[in-house]
Amino acid sequence: MGSNPASSTFELPFPLPLDGGQTLANAVIAYESYGTLSAERDNAILLCHALTGDQFVASPHPLTGKPGWWERMVGPGKPIDTGRFHVICANIVGGCMGSTGPGSVGPDGKPYAMRFPVITIRDMVRASVALLDGLGIERLHAVVGGSMGGMQALSLAANFPERAERVLAIATTARHSAQNIAFHEVGRQAVMADPDWQGGDYYGSGRAPDKGLSVARMAAHITYLSEAGLTEKFGRNLQDRPDGSRGAKSFGFDADFQIESYLRYQGSGFTQRFDANSYLYITRAMDYFDLAEEHGGRLADAFAGTTARFCLVSFDSDWLYPTAESRHVVHALNAAGAPVSFVELSAPHGHDSFLLEHAALDRVVRGFIG
Amino acid sequence: MGSNPASSTFELPFPLPLDGGQTLANAVIAYESYGTLSAERDNAILLCHALTGDQFVASPHPLTGKPGWWERMVGPGKPIDTGRFHVICANIVGGCMGSTGPGSVGPDGKPYAMRFPVITIRDMVRASVALLDGLGIERLHAVVGGSMGGMQALSLAANFPERAERVLAIATTARHSAQNIAFHEVGRQAVMADPDWQGGDYYGSGRAPDKGLSVARMAAHITYLSEAGLTEKFGRNLQDRPDGSRGAKSFGFDADFQIESYLRYQGSGFTQRFDANSYLYITRAMDYFDLAEEHGGRLADAFAGTTARFCLVSFDSDWLYPTAESRHVVHALNAAGAPVSFVELSAPHGHDSFLLEHAALDRVVRGFIG
Repeated sequence: MGSNPASSTFELPFPLPLDGGQTLANAVIAYESYGTLSAERDNAILLCHALTGDQFVASPHPLTGKPGWWERMVGPGKPIDTGRFHVICANIVGGCMGSTGPGSVGPDGKPYAMRFPVITIRDMVRASVALLDGLGIERLHAVVGGSMGGMQALSLAANFPERAERVLAIATTARHSAQNIAFHEVGRQAVMADPDWQGGDYYGSGRAPDKGLSVARMAAHITYLSEAGLTEKFGRNLQDRPDGSRGAKSFGFDADFQIESYLRYQGSGFTQRFDANSYLYITRAMDYFDLAEEHGGRLADAFAGTTARFCLVSFDSDWLYPTAESRHVVHALNAAGAPVSFVELSAPHGHDSFLLEHAALDRVVRGFIG
Repeated sequence: MGSNPASSTFELPFPLPLDGGQTLANAVIAYESYGTLSAERDNAILLCHALTGDQFVASPHPLTGKPGWWERMVGPGKPIDTGRFHVICANIVGGCMGSTGPGSVGPDGKPYAMRFPVITIRDMVRASVALLDGLGIERLHAVVGGSMGGMQALSLAANFPERAERVLAIATTARHSAQNIAFHEVGRQAVMADPDWQGGDYYGSGRAPDKGLSVARMAAHITYLSEAGLTEKFGRNLQDRPDGSRGAKSFGFDADFQIESYLRYQGSGFTQRFDANSYLYITRAMDYFDLAEEHGGRLADAFAGTTARFCLVSFDSDWLYPTAESRHVVHALNAAGAPVSFVELSAPHGHDSFLLEHAALDRVVRGFIG
């Protein structure tokens, strides 16, 4: 974790002011970009990644070798057309793919670990805006994001209203609900219960809280999928045995059901590419997110100064950030007099639908980006 | 854990045959009873408890001192009227409140731990029926249960069709879904990831996997409550500080939100009264539960021999075992020609509604029990 030679980096020329009252000195932002910035610098799209995403939107992940997380959406001729647009995606501050985060070396020469300051979604956006300043991009053609990326898109629109012409927020919310916080708290407790966490100071110890992080990922992963999608994909199907025999109940505690095996795989795979402390900090930032509270308690006031056009997209099977949350944002934008379109898409796969093949989503994105 | 002097006990006079193919010798069932058994022995009601419940339905819990878990439903003049009925509730086999379970001493003189055989819901019912035999109760006035208790009630009706006149199954299902299994698997992995679990052999070591069990309980607890109920009860309310000051974000990892504090309390409280290995075995039994599969794949066939009247109750905010699951059972009972009434109750609190104050539930129970 820490530095990541695969990406471009930008060091902020000033200490990043944080909502918690501290500042973060010498913060570095790692980012990827795709397509060519126009001479007028008016064709840039800022893509914001989700909790466990990163800047590798449309290029292979350097740790896993897997394709970028939104290859189907971003590329030449794709809905976000890199033949026309300059797409930038930055690893969030607090992350673990090259941007400054808890795994980075702090002022005392040691990794920050839990001495890293607690950050917010707005802090992430401040860092992204500093990056845009550094790149000489005054006004974005669009800011786009799903899930936590959508929170950043909304936060940018609210806090830097002159910086984006278009705001596309997918499968997201303007505030974390009690249930959202509850699931994150389970994940954090799972990490912190792992003795290998060592109060966060596991860097260089040869031990990391992989078991705790894996449990956290498993719990979170359930919330990304719909009940119906899980039933369709796994149902009560039994896992074939390692010896090749057809699945049967073991009357033991092996992964008998395919869903168990799948979750274990998701959990353990995650630990190979993600830092546990980053997981703590980023979930905390999401739980703190309440765009209305930041703006005097009325969400419409958050968007009072906006000049952007908005598009909100939700999925009918998303129970993490249900359609009602998007509608809540749309009503606030209406009250603020902002132009907004809103689409609820039908999809069987729950929250993760925004990452999956979905022709109607492609059309909405292409149409809105223009 | 293990023996529990507060309850009556019954030692099975034969080795309990188990679905896994093994038998359990010298199994002991701990049970509570309320009200007087009639001379004709025809007024007995078997109450089946849920995953983390126990036999203390209407009397104080010996470990926590708290009232019984269904005091509001069971007692003189209450919907399950102990002035008229003899109510029996047995700790399930595999449990940790006096019935034989993984914390009990096995044939080698040591606690079973993970050498305890994997059990099923039907195995629990077999043990209960053996207890009824021991008590000379041929036919129950009713078998009643919520959640896993409802699974036992349905299993008793299917496998011992002559043993109950009435079957009341509340907030339950005839099979565990992929999502149900997924949440349980997260809990099991949390327990087994805790080094204090020690492969299950923690008894007498002075260490128990309390942290892992607490995380498991936290994850499960979220599934017992509805999103709306959590929002109503906690929303994004901040926790008051130990020093009495009003809640404010700490920009740290303390329990800032009331929902975090509540979940932590639920998790840690649970470890004081529950055995982690029992939690593994009971969740496994629930995940294995598929009443149709036990009976050739067609749920109606499970009820082919029944002579009982049925009542199914679901709650509209229960997303753990949604109304569709009860309806599925009702359709099977219709197909089997069994008399069945079905009520979906409106309640804000999700799955746990069956344990909470609900006047309409009281009326349904009273009316059906007769």
